[in-house]
Amino acid sequence: MHDVMPSMSREVNHLKRSVLRDLLALAVDPTIISLAGGLPASEFLPLDEFRSCLETVLKRDGAEALQYSTQHAPLQEWIAGYMGRRGVRVGPEQVFITNGAQQGLAILSRLLLDPGEPAVIEQVTFPGIQQVTAGRGAQMRPIPTDLESGADLEALEAAFRQETRPRLAILVPDFHNPLGVSLSAEKRALAAGLAARYGVPLIEDDPYSELAFSGQPLPPIKAYDEAEMVFYVGSFSKILAPAVRLGWIIGPASMTPQITVIRESLDLESSTLLQRAVAEFYARDAFGRHLQPLRAANQERCETLLAALEEHFGGLARWSRPSGGLFVWARFPQEWDTFALFPRAVEHRVAYIPGAAFTLDGSQRNAMRLNFSNLRPQAIREGIQRLSEVIGEHALSGA
Amino acid sequence: MHDVMPSMSREVNHLKRSVLRDLLALAVDPTIISLAGGLPASEFLPLDEFRSCLETVLKRDGAEALQYSTQHAPLQEWIAGYMGRRGVRVGPEQVFITNGAQQGLAILSRLLLDPGEPAVIEQVTFPGIQQVTAGRGAQMRPIPTDLESGADLEALEAAFRQETRPRLAILVPDFHNPLGVSLSAEKRALAAGLAARYGVPLIEDDPYSELAFSGQPLPPIKAYDEAEMVFYVGSFSKILAPAVRLGWIIGPASMTPQITVIRESLDLESSTLLQRAVAEFYARDAFGRHLQPLRAANQERCETLLAALEEHFGGLARWSRPSGGLFVWARFPQEWDTFALFPRAVEHRVAYIPGAAFTLDGSQRNAMRLNFSNLRPQAIREGIQRLSEVIGEHALSGA
Repeated sequence: MHDVMPSMSREVNHLKRSVLRDLLALAVDPTIISLAGGLPASEFLPLDEFRSCLETVLKRDGAEALQYSTQHAPLQEWIAGYMGRRGVRVGPEQVFITNGAQQGLAILSRLLLDPGEPAVIEQVTFPGIQQVTAGRGAQMRPIPTDLESGADLEALEAAFRQETRPRLAILVPDFHNPLGVSLSAEKRALAAGLAARYGVPLIEDDPYSELAFSGQPLPPIKAYDEAEMVFYVGSFSKILAPAVRLGWIIGPASMTPQITVIRESLDLESSTLLQRAVAEFYARDAFGRHLQPLRAANQERCETLLAALEEHFGGLARWSRPSGGLFVWARFPQEWDTFALFPRAVEHRVAYIPGAAFTLDGSQRNAMRLNFSNLRPQAIREGIQRLSEVIGEHALSGA
Repeated sequence: MHDVMPSMSREVNHLKRSVLRDLLALAVDPTIISLAGGLPASEFLPLDEFRSCLETVLKRDGAEALQYSTQHAPLQEWIAGYMGRRGVRVGPEQVFITNGAQQGLAILSRLLLDPGEPAVIEQVTFPGIQQVTAGRGAQMRPIPTDLESGADLEALEAAFRQETRPRLAILVPDFHNPLGVSLSAEKRALAAGLAARYGVPLIEDDPYSELAFSGQPLPPIKAYDEAEMVFYVGSFSKILAPAVRLGWIIGPASMTPQITVIRESLDLESSTLLQRAVAEFYARDAFGRHLQPLRAANQERCETLLAALEEHFGGLARWSRPSGGLFVWARFPQEWDTFALFPRAVEHRVAYIPGAAFTLDGSQRNAMRLNFSNLRPQAIREGIQRLSEVIGEHALSGA
């Protein structure tokens, strides 16, 4: 009797065991310089202000702030106003608050996609996007993404045009994870038009757009969506703090009942305490005030990373040159294997994410994702120096 | 182009649009006495203490408390110690922290069950349990539950014994929602034995056991689980506060990687801020100290409800007599329809949950769930008085 094990669902076998979490755990070792993370800079998290917001909410709202609750209307209103400033006209009732962008993706996947049906994602993309499509057993139609101009919309149209229409497509419009590239306004309008023309729901995963180093972000794809075929997914993790675990979906108002029932089946609701504290934060803080020093630091760190790459890998590798976000993507000569090199990198006390973590087929083995947002410039320089030693050894042993 | 709508998944059609949320919304109207809720008593939520815990954590842990993080080890340790005191020996690494019990159920459903496969639940049960089984398209094998002795384990064995084994079964051991009944120690041991004998994973949903009016709760079914076939699901919503949105799963250690990857695909992780604050709360509070006045108030309210039922419906209806939890289940004569009566009840400024909300087939139309935990005794008496007027009118018009 004791050697019987519960047998697992077929569905769970589609999920890829993420290496990201294991790699992230390395960042805890203070002797390792981790370029593997995806964390916003800790020094710029609004610690005192958020503590004060929690205190205000608990004193003002009392037990209501610790009870079960519905979606917090003042937060829905703030989000609707924010989206309006970005060119997306929505009422507060069309804002569905989630536990971060990943839950938005998970809910929309369940709303729109059944296992075995076709879905379009980028060939190189965030593993969380793979998990809500391939991880649910979808028939995958990956499209290429150019390091300069972003997702290939001709390939998107070709994937839409097939006899069996995809049930959904997912794009990252700004500061793509892991590629760092953004879509032009023209491509955003075109993507919305393709979704409308072929009747394919397009999910826009947008956690990074407010992390432009300077200037205003472009309007999201949703701003060009006249046919209500675009679902926008936002997040407070990178613009306020990951631990608020809050984000939002903007979809067609007619689908709110189904979105609500899916969400309730998953985990009922988001913490009303955190929803209230975030609403209080934005009632106090002109949006972006606390982001300004973060953006400036990100820019300095990104420039430091790019300069260090040029110093150590100029002529050997190619990399993206983002104007915001958290990540640079570097491609090394075809025969270099960043996955195989990883243990040696850890011996040299430096970590990155191997490119293959971002593909379904394990390709991109000569690439890596490098994070610049949560390291001081000196650590970035030292990290790339260590990386050049790892790779120098490798080139030597391979010669 | 504009009249095309995104088409929804087949899967979402299995989900039942919950009436609970709509009914809960009624409780906001202060002129309605809502016996429909499932909220812990607001007056006993540890408002000042929890505010102080949040402050301590943010001052002590700084930016770490607002960042991405893994499962918070001190909270896992506290939960492992708590489970040990209840007779379940587990290491902290076997505790998987979730966003409340509903997320525990959703994760385990995805771990163990594919659409179309058999699942066992009680005929009358919490809609959240229906949503993770029938709501995922399972082939349902419901078993009856007795108002005095709980789930019918002969029926459970019969459901297990069929040629195609169920992929999972879900039971509520203590203060059943909505029936209010608990399983005896003998039945708990028997249920664990059946799971082992037939190799069927048994999920034990246990949010209420610490709400016994007096005395210690019985050991959970998991305490009798020698074969690692029982998955325990716990929650802080009723014993600390709903807005912490935290709960936990105790399953076989070998399944933690799969549980982790499912959870990451759904919403990455639980707020480290809330995890830390709950750990701080239990580092300060001898477990149960803050629960004592809550339990006493619950008992008084339950006794008030039972006395009012006796006064107005004695001889006409039958009801459960719980020794803890939040709910009483009342059954009226067969020809009374609590669903049809509901609009009239609202006209009389009283609300309850119609029994049919707790069944897959819409039966139990002559029953209702009554909550006593979040109303003062005077309001409970007045609510049952109003209910008797509604039903008096109904009896009159039906005569």
